[in-house]
Amino acid sequence: MEYQEYKEYREYFKDLIDKKEIKELKESVSELKNVVDIAEIIEDMEDKDMLLVFRMLPKEKSAEVFSYMELNDQLRIVTSITEPELNSIIEELNFDDRIDILEEMPANVVTKVLKNTPASERKLINEFLRYPEDSAGSIMTIEYVNFTEDMTVKEAMEHIKEVGMDKETIYTCYVENEYKMLIGFVSLRTIVISDEDKKIKDIMIEDVVSVNTLDDREEVADAFIKYGYIALPVVDGEHRLCGIITFDDIMDVVEAETTEDFHKMAAINPSEDEYLDQTPWQLSKNRIPWLLILMISATFTGGIINRYNYILVEYMILNTFIPMMTDTGGNSGSQSSTTVIRALATGEIGLSDSVKVMLKEVEVGLICGSILSFVNFLRLIFIAKTPVVIAILVSFTMLITVVLSKFLGATLPMLVKRVNLDPAIMASALITTIIDSVVLLIYFGLASKFLPL
Amino acid sequence: MEYQEYKEYREYFKDLIDKKEIKELKESVSELKNVVDIAEIIEDMEDKDMLLVFRMLPKEKSAEVFSYMELNDQLRIVTSITEPELNSIIEELNFDDRIDILEEMPANVVTKVLKNTPASERKLINEFLRYPEDSAGSIMTIEYVNFTEDMTVKEAMEHIKEVGMDKETIYTCYVENEYKMLIGFVSLRTIVISDEDKKIKDIMIEDVVSVNTLDDREEVADAFIKYGYIALPVVDGEHRLCGIITFDDIMDVVEAETTEDFHKMAAINPSEDEYLDQTPWQLSKNRIPWLLILMISATFTGGIINRYNYILVEYMILNTFIPMMTDTGGNSGSQSSTTVIRALATGEIGLSDSVKVMLKEVEVGLICGSILSFVNFLRLIFIAKTPVVIAILVSFTMLITVVLSKFLGATLPMLVKRVNLDPAIMASALITTIIDSVVLLIYFGLASKFLPL
Repeated sequence: MEYQEYKEYREYFKDLIDKKEIKELKESVSELKNVVDIAEIIEDMEDKDMLLVFRMLPKEKSAEVFSYMELNDQLRIVTSITEPELNSIIEELNFDDRIDILEEMPANVVTKVLKNTPASERKLINEFLRYPEDSAGSIMTIEYVNFTEDMTVKEAMEHIKEVGMDKETIYTCYVENEYKMLIGFVSLRTIVISDEDKKIKDIMIEDVVSVNTLDDREEVADAFIKYGYIALPVVDGEHRLCGIITFDDIMDVVEAETTEDFHKMAAINPSEDEYLDQTPWQLSKNRIPWLLILMISATFTGGIINRYNYILVEYMILNTFIPMMTDTGGNSGSQSSTTVIRALATGEIGLSDSVKVMLKEVEVGLICGSILSFVNFLRLIFIAKTPVVIAILVSFTMLITVVLSKFLGATLPMLVKRVNLDPAIMASALITTIIDSVVLLIYFGLASKFLPL
Repeated sequence: MEYQEYKEYREYFKDLIDKKEIKELKESVSELKNVVDIAEIIEDMEDKDMLLVFRMLPKEKSAEVFSYMELNDQLRIVTSITEPELNSIIEELNFDDRIDILEEMPANVVTKVLKNTPASERKLINEFLRYPEDSAGSIMTIEYVNFTEDMTVKEAMEHIKEVGMDKETIYTCYVENEYKMLIGFVSLRTIVISDEDKKIKDIMIEDVVSVNTLDDREEVADAFIKYGYIALPVVDGEHRLCGIITFDDIMDVVEAETTEDFHKMAAINPSEDEYLDQTPWQLSKNRIPWLLILMISATFTGGIINRYNYILVEYMILNTFIPMMTDTGGNSGSQSSTTVIRALATGEIGLSDSVKVMLKEVEVGLICGSILSFVNFLRLIFIAKTPVVIAILVSFTMLITVVLSKFLGATLPMLVKRVNLDPAIMASALITTIIDSVVLLIYFGLASKFLPL
């Protein structure tokens, strides 16, 4: 279903609710089969209407729909339904979804939910709630299938039939030794096509890629993209299997992390909430800090212009070229910084390539700079009829500007990464402000040297 | 394995090759188990060395390693190995990987390969080669498991055992009717836990999400992220099943599409090649067009300053505030445009939300603008000791600048999308250039009205 269809459904439901045609509403709701689509439709409805439709869903379906909703909307439901309703939803949820929602619920609701949970599970839930935010531990699930190495294929298959329905995935199963350490994995495909009498240890793959409970979810996402597995096992410091993460959960992580990068690069402090869910005030709070910092920094650039006022008084024409110069510097620089930041993020380049990248960007700067500088020179001489000495000054500064911007644009993100900060902060906005000052210093420096004053 | 380990392996292998210690090289190569890791290691080796190590791999493994390599590196191998070697690799590849590499190979190599392919498959390959680039058809595979609705679970399981080894995935199987039309799907999980005598039609799910052969791969990626399935079926205009796409192939697409967005937003024409594989000349070619366009546009800004020279001559101090004003405008605008572009890309907002988004951004602009304007006023009065009338003029322009930038930053990407262009082009660079002119017009317009001249 597409965005437009969701909207149409919402409007149709709203209409039925307003007209109190509840029977027809119930019928239309029951015709919707796909839980993802249902979640998308009701998420953007008003509290009261959302709850009405949500309660019309059959019990098993409502938990599934709930698990596909945004956290914000889950909380809207949690705080409006009765305790028995809440307990039955929580019970139906997968373990990892249950942890996710418990992490975000108000403390009093968590207590209420845990009260109705068996002691053994309560202990486990509390353990999971202690994993750091955004760690592999905090997004993994314990609902995996595990074998011992001495099981036969037949026994393994029976085990799957018995427990498979409640597991997040049965397509990759993990093999543990007596100390609960992860020693291999076997895919359901291998089990299905293997002889019934074979031992698991003879068909399992020992070279198993795993992540650590404390790894950041971004590292986990990188591993998924690189290896393309359906699931990855999560182990603790002693290589004991603690849980698994499945690819569908990681696709959301990839999207969220990418959005975070986009926002950081646009000088916005990232937020986990969706755009339409945030108030103007919340949005502003995430945007103001960098705007303030950058506004104050830009006064330095103003200061430089101020310092060279004595040149401008003589050659007012130089003032006209400042926007072109600083804009081109900013654009060249952010082309390089964006390229480098993204290549670092996807693992295309590493810090050990720093020198290679810097040299390459200088070469690119020379090529781009020469072309821009040449076009600019022609325009100044033939169209703007600028005096030759000014045209040379401006074009030469342009060349230096582009080379230097490319060099800084490539180098600064790598420097920032070297000191273990996120290179994304060295994107357009900050780069532009830095380059502005450098460009003006060169421009006026050259002018004061070569123009008769 | 991490980036650093790959590098160490490469250096170690290079060392062994230089010392001609081929036996030891062979042993070290055979100790590497994971095909993804092997691909990463040899990809960045020199042609001759890469080929040497590649040829040391056992036959089945070499095809797998090949399939995980970047296209560029695959071509380096294809053009260096013998015809029988090439044929044996091509034969071992999955159907979709085979198509991918054939699409990119020089025509004479393709002819050679097709010569050794059975006629029926040759016809199929040619059909696949005709799908538009980046369409679902061009990335799908035909290696899926299909059932008829009258099969029993037992028959289905036997069918999987028989053909499963050669299929891209066996975890989701598709059900076709007599006209080859897709009528449902059934997961291996359901098959494994269902009664042997049950009919497929009784356990299959009829509400099947599918994509069309001509859909863009970006739409396919969106569907994967939304629904979280392992595979999606691809159908033609008559809803006949043509192939499937699996999630591991789509993760690469998601990464590539995101990189494309980042590059477009930084005013770079996107390229499919990796950064380190591109020559400075290729990189420059993708960056020059926008730099030129933006440089020329920036001369308009210069023109505006030029037009108001008569004010600057009287009030040189106004010149000092131009960078701060235009930078803040650019930053505010690109915060909004990036947010809107990304939210459009992830489907968080749609064009039907346009009015809501515009109003919200104006509100955000009022909040941010007031704060910035206030801070700026205090700084001008108390630190810079600027005359009050100038401080008021600058601060008031600042408020208008921020509100207007936020409005333009949000509106222009949606306008561009409305006319079916990619909103990503309305990112920082272009927005900044547009806002620069608008800001200066307002600044000088107000100055010429309110300052005594």
